Amino acid sequence: MTQHKVIFTPSGIRATASGEDTVYDVALAAGVDLQSICGGKGMCNRCQVEVEPGSHAKYGITVGEDALSDFTDSEKRAIEKGRLQPGRRLACRARVLGDVVVDVPADAREYDTSISKTSVAFLTDLAPAVTLHMLELPQQELDDNPSDAEALSAALRRFGIEASPKHRTLVKLQPILAKNNRRLIAVVRDDREIIDIWPPEMFHVYGAAIDIGSTSIALYVYDLSQGELAYEASAMNPQIRFGEDLMSRVSYCMLNKGGEEKLTKAVREQVAAMLEQARVTLSLGQNQILEVVAVGNPIMHHLFLGISPVELGQAPFTLAVKDQFQVPARLLDLGISESARVTMLPLIGGHVGADTTGAYLTQIDAMEGRSVLLVDIGTNAEIVLSHGGKVAAASSPTGPAFEGAEISAGVRASKGAIERVRIDPATGSARVRIIGHDEWNSDSDGSALPHRVSGICGSGIFEVMVELADAGFIDRGGLFRPEACPARFVQDGKSWKFLLVDQPGAQIWIKQTDIRSVQLAKAALAAGVRLLTDHLGCESFDEVLLAGAFGNHLDSSYVARIGIIPGAEADQIRSIGNAAGMGAAMAMFNRAEQQKLVEAVRHIEKVETATEPKFQDYFVEAMAFPSAPQSNDENQQGRGRRRRSRDRTA
Amino acid sequence: MTQHKVIFTPSGIRATASGEDTVYDVALAAGVDLQSICGGKGMCNRCQVEVEPGSHAKYGITVGEDALSDFTDSEKRAIEKGRLQPGRRLACRARVLGDVVVDVPADAREYDTSISKTSVAFLTDLAPAVTLHMLELPQQELDDNPSDAEALSAALRRFGIEASPKHRTLVKLQPILAKNNRRLIAVVRDDREIIDIWPPEMFHVYGAAIDIGSTSIALYVYDLSQGELAYEASAMNPQIRFGEDLMSRVSYCMLNKGGEEKLTKAVREQVAAMLEQARVTLSLGQNQILEVVAVGNPIMHHLFLGISPVELGQAPFTLAVKDQFQVPARLLDLGISESARVTMLPLIGGHVGADTTGAYLTQIDAMEGRSVLLVDIGTNAEIVLSHGGKVAAASSPTGPAFEGAEISAGVRASKGAIERVRIDPATGSARVRIIGHDEWNSDSDGSALPHRVSGICGSGIFEVMVELADAGFIDRGGLFRPEACPARFVQDGKSWKFLLVDQPGAQIWIKQTDIRSVQLAKAALAAGVRLLTDHLGCESFDEVLLAGAFGNHLDSSYVARIGIIPGAEADQIRSIGNAAGMGAAMAMFNRAEQQKLVEAVRHIEKVETATEPKFQDYFVEAMAFPSAPQSNDENQQGRGRRRRSRDRTA
Repeated sequence: MTQHKVIFTPSGIRATASGEDTVYDVALAAGVDLQSICGGKGMCNRCQVEVEPGSHAKYGITVGEDALSDFTDSEKRAIEKGRLQPGRRLACRARVLGDVVVDVPADAREYDTSISKTSVAFLTDLAPAVTLHMLELPQQELDDNPSDAEALSAALRRFGIEASPKHRTLVKLQPILAKNNRRLIAVVRDDREIIDIWPPEMFHVYGAAIDIGSTSIALYVYDLSQGELAYEASAMNPQIRFGEDLMSRVSYCMLNKGGEEKLTKAVREQVAAMLEQARVTLSLGQNQILEVVAVGNPIMHHLFLGISPVELGQAPFTLAVKDQFQVPARLLDLGISESARVTMLPLIGGHVGADTTGAYLTQIDAMEGRSVLLVDIGTNAEIVLSHGGKVAAASSPTGPAFEGAEISAGVRASKGAIERVRIDPATGSARVRIIGHDEWNSDSDGSALPHRVSGICGSGIFEVMVELADAGFIDRGGLFRPEACPARFVQDGKSWKFLLVDQPGAQIWIKQTDIRSVQLAKAALAAGVRLLTDHLGCESFDEVLLAGAFGNHLDSSYVARIGIIPGAEADQIRSIGNAAGMGAAMAMFNRAEQQKLVEAVRHIEKVETATEPKFQDYFVEAMAFPSAPQSNDENQQGRGRRRRSRDRTA
Repeated sequence: MTQHKVIFTPSGIRATASGEDTVYDVALAAGVDLQSICGGKGMCNRCQVEVEPGSHAKYGITVGEDALSDFTDSEKRAIEKGRLQPGRRLACRARVLGDVVVDVPADAREYDTSISKTSVAFLTDLAPAVTLHMLELPQQELDDNPSDAEALSAALRRFGIEASPKHRTLVKLQPILAKNNRRLIAVVRDDREIIDIWPPEMFHVYGAAIDIGSTSIALYVYDLSQGELAYEASAMNPQIRFGEDLMSRVSYCMLNKGGEEKLTKAVREQVAAMLEQARVTLSLGQNQILEVVAVGNPIMHHLFLGISPVELGQAPFTLAVKDQFQVPARLLDLGISESARVTMLPLIGGHVGADTTGAYLTQIDAMEGRSVLLVDIGTNAEIVLSHGGKVAAASSPTGPAFEGAEISAGVRASKGAIERVRIDPATGSARVRIIGHDEWNSDSDGSALPHRVSGICGSGIFEVMVELADAGFIDRGGLFRPEACPARFVQDGKSWKFLLVDQPGAQIWIKQTDIRSVQLAKAALAAGVRLLTDHLGCESFDEVLLAGAFGNHLDSSYVARIGIIPGAEADQIRSIGNAAGMGAAMAMFNRAEQQKLVEAVRHIEKVETATEPKFQDYFVEAMAFPSAPQSNDENQQGRGRRRRSRDRTA
C-alpha cells in the first residue's frame, strides 16, 4: 500500500498516511491536537488545517499541488457559509495523496480550549493520603532475627503507622536494604498501607486531579509532597466521536454491542496519554504518580470505571455505584504505578454526578448554614441548594444551548468567540467582545472589526438574548419582532434571522431556532431551581455560585436579567470557575476534606425533576423573556404549542 | 532440522524431537511424568525408560534399532552397578535419532511417589474464608434509588456481612442482575470482601492446599462448600534441575544473575499446571478455585513468593517475611481466578518454615499442655517441642541421608524400595520388605526374591543400621567389622562393603560411607532434640510425632533403637503422615484454626542450633550406635577424627 509522510506543525509530529486516510485520521492516530466535536464527520468545521505547497527543506519534503484530495462539497459549502477560511481545508475531508506538511492553526488546536487558569487555587491544608517516610532499619543480628518485613513495620510504628508490606513491596525489600545500608523511603497510603518502597533519594510523590467532562478532560498534576501545582493540561474527550452529547453516547452503547468498551477505552487512553505527557514533562519516575482523584457526571464516571451506562439511559436510572469509589489504577489501564489508586468522588444521583460533588466540596464551608445556590451549567444543569441546615440537589435537562451547541452560530468558549454583546435598540447594530481580546470590537460594521469573530459561545448567547429582549427585537414569548428593526432582519425560510455581526464573508446571524434553544434551556434551569427552593422552603439566596468554564465568561447582571435563576440578584452571583476539577484536587490534598464530602453527600436530598409534576408548570412559566414586550398572543408560550408557534413566525 | 515423532506410553503423549534432544528433554517439554532428581545430568539413574524396536501399529510408527543413540558410558556404568535394569535406557542420556515409542515404567513415573494417601483426613469444622450467599435484590423504583452496589451491600448485611463490591465485581453487577431477575450469588471472603458475583446457578467454591517440598509438590483440592477432598496430585519440584538440595539452589541464585527468577518461575509454573489439571479434571469454571493455602520450608516459601533466598544462604539468615502472608493469586501467575488469594502459613525462623507450622497446626490441640515432640525429617529435620506451657522449635542439618540420598543404594520412597530389613546375625543374610508389597521377600539369595528391589529408601536405611549394629557387623563408632561376617563383606577400595541383597545383576551393597551419612544425620537430629529439651527443661515425652512421607514407612521400634530421638520410647512414637499438607488444608477449612496458628506461632521460641556451643558436644555424643559392640578405640568416635578413622577401615 502506498504510504505518504505527514508532518504536523507546529508540533513537529511525524506520521504516515496510507490507503484512504484523511488528514484527520492521521492526526488522531498520531496524537496531534486537533479540535473536532463531530468526530471527523465533516459537520463541525472545527478541524481546519493549512497546507502550503512547495519545498519544505526543514522536513526534507516537497509538497505537491495534489498532495491532498480535491475540495469536497461539504468544504465548499463551509467556505460559502464563511465557516471555513479561504486557504484552509477540513482535515476530516482531505485525503492524503502525497507527502505533506500540515499546519494546525492555533484556533484548531485542542489545548487552546479556555479552561480557566484562575481556578487552580483553593484553600486547604496539605494532608494527602500518600505520605513518605524515610526509615533506617536496625542491622540484623544472628539469633532469632525479626524478618525484614517485621523490622519495616516496627520502624513505621514510630510514625504512628500500623502497616505490613504487601507482595509488591516485599519482593524488593531485601535488595533495597542491602543496597542502601538498610535505609529506604516507605510510601504509605491512608496511614495503614505500604504501597511502595523507594531508595532513600526520591522525595516527591505526585497526584493527579482529573475532571472528565463530556466535552473536554482537564488534568491537574500536583506535587503532593510540597503542595504545588506542577502541570496542567486539557484535551477533548475522544468519546465525542461516538456522540456529541451524553444521551447519544448512551444510545451508542445500547445500539452497538461492545460499544461501552469502546467508550471506556477511548477515555482511558486519553487520560493515560495525558498522564504520560505529564510524567515526561515533569521527568517523573514510573512510580511517582500515586494518587488520582477524578470527577465526572454519572455517565462519564461509569464509563471511566468500565461500567455500562445503559441503566442510566432508561428509567429507573439506577446507578451501579453512588458512594465514593476507589480502584487500583492498574485496573483502569492508566499506565501509572501499579500501586496508584484512583478515587472517584461520590455521586448524588442518576443525573447529579461527581463533578457536582467536586464543585460542592470547594464550597461546602461557604454553603454551610447559609442559603446558597450552586449551579453547574453544561448539557445538563446540576443544581445544589443549601438552606436551613439541609442540602438538596437536582438536575435539569437544559440541553447544550448554553455551551454554544444547537446555536446556529455557536462555538465553544475558545479564542474568537463572542462573549459579550451590546445591541443598540435604535439601529440594531451590535458591539461585541471576543475571547482572547480585552477591548470591545467596534460597531458591527465588519470593516471596523480588529479581530475576526468565530461565533458565539454559551455566555455570549445569554447577552444576545437579553439585549434582543431589552431592545424589543423579540417578544416575551421569544418570537422575533422584525418590524422593530427591519434593517437587521432578513427572511430565513419561513422565519426570520437577525444580523449580529456583519464581517465580510462570515456574517453571524441569530435565528429563531436559536432563541428557542435558549428558551428551553433557561426554562429547564429555572424550573429546576424552583423545585429545589420549594423543596427546602428557600425564599431568597445569600449567594448564587456558577461553576464551570461557562460561568467564567458570564456577566452576572445578564444572568439575573434573563431570569434563569428565579430570585437571583446580580450582586449575589459569583463565578467559581472549574470547581469540579478543583474539588478533585482538594479531595486529593486533604483526606479529611474528602471524608467530609463523603459524609455530606450521603445527606444530600435528591429531587427528581423528571417525575415532579410541578416541573412542567415552572418550565412553561420560565419560557418568557420578562424584559421583552408582550407578544400578540401571550398564550402561545404554552409548551405544547411551541412547534406550532414556530411555524407561525414565517 | 530433522524431526522425529516420540510417543510416550502409557500416557499416550505425543511429542516431537529435533536436533540433539534427549528423551528426557522431550518428556520435560511435553509434560510427561518422568522422575529425575538430578535434573537430567545422568547422575540419579531415575529417568529409566524402555524402547521396543519394531512396528507399533497402534501409533503408526516403526521403531528402528537405531532410534536412540548408543549406550553412553554412564549408562554402561549404571548397568554394571545394577542401577539400570537391562533393556532400559536413561532418558537423559539417550538422544532421539528416529521415530520412537518410549515406555515410562511405573517406577520411573513421578506420580508414583508414595505421598501418603491415609493422611488426607483431619478433624475440624468447615468454616472457610470464602462463603457463598444467594441474594435477591429489590426491584428499583424511580425516585432516589439506591445504587445497585448499595442494594448488594444491604442484602449482604442481612447475613451479618459489611462489604461493598470492588471494581471487578462492580463492572458486572448490573448485567448479572438484569439477566437473572435481580438474583445472584455473592462470593464473600473473610465476611468482609465481595470477591466475585456469580449467576444464581453456581454453588461450589474450591480451595487448594499445596505442600511445596524441595523434592515434590503435593496438591489437594477441596470443595469448600461441602468439605470434601475432590482431587489430589503430586509432582516433582522442577527446581531440582537447579540443584538437588536447598543450599545448592540458594547457591544457584547467588552465582547466577536472575537465578531466583528462574527458580520462582519453575515452581509457579508447576503449581499452575497442577491447578489447571485439577480444574480440567473436576470440570470447574475459571473462577471456582478461590482459595489457596500453601506451605513450604523458608526457601521454598520465599521462592514461591518471588523473594530472593540469598539472605537465607548466609548469616544472619534474615527472612524477608515470617508472619502469615497473603497475596492475590494473580501476582503469582497461578492461572486461577483474579480474585483468588494465596495464604502462606507463617514461618518460625530462618530454617523452620511453613511446612513445620502446617504440621504443627494438625497437632496443636494434641500438644497443648503436654510434652510432645513433633519431628519432620527431610534434608533438614525440623523439631517442635511443647512442654510446660511453652513451645520451642529448632532445625537440625541432617543432610539428605534419611531421604535415601547420599546413600549409595538409596532411592526415594517409591515402589520397589526396601523399607524393612532383618539381618540374621549368624549368617549375615537379610530379609527385606519393599514398598508396594506387603509380604517379606525371602532370604537374600537372589533367586528366591519374588520382586525386584530398586534400592533402599530412607526408612529402610534406619533398619539396616540398627540391624547391622545389633548383629555386631559395625562397632559403636560406626566402623565395619568384616571379621564378624566374612561371607557378606568384600573389599571396596580402601574400605569394605556389606552385601545386603544379592539379586542377579543388581546386588545391593551397604558401604562405609553410607554408615557415615546416617551417623551424621542421626547425630544432627539427636543434638537438635537435646537442645530443645534442654531449653524447655523437658525430661520425657508424652508423645513423639513423626511427620512426612518418611515417617509413614518407619517402624517406631527402630527409631527408638537407633537413638536419633534421645529419650523416645517405641510406644510413644507415632507417624502423622504428610502433616504439612494437611495443616494447609486445615487452615483452609477453618479460618479460626488458621488464626489460632498465626497467634500460636508468634509465641514459639526459636532455638538456634548453629550458634549454640552445646550442639557440637551433643552431636559428637550422638554419633554412636549404642547397641553395637565397643570399637577397638572408643575415642575414634570423636568428630574431629572421622576422616582419619574412615581411612583406617581399609
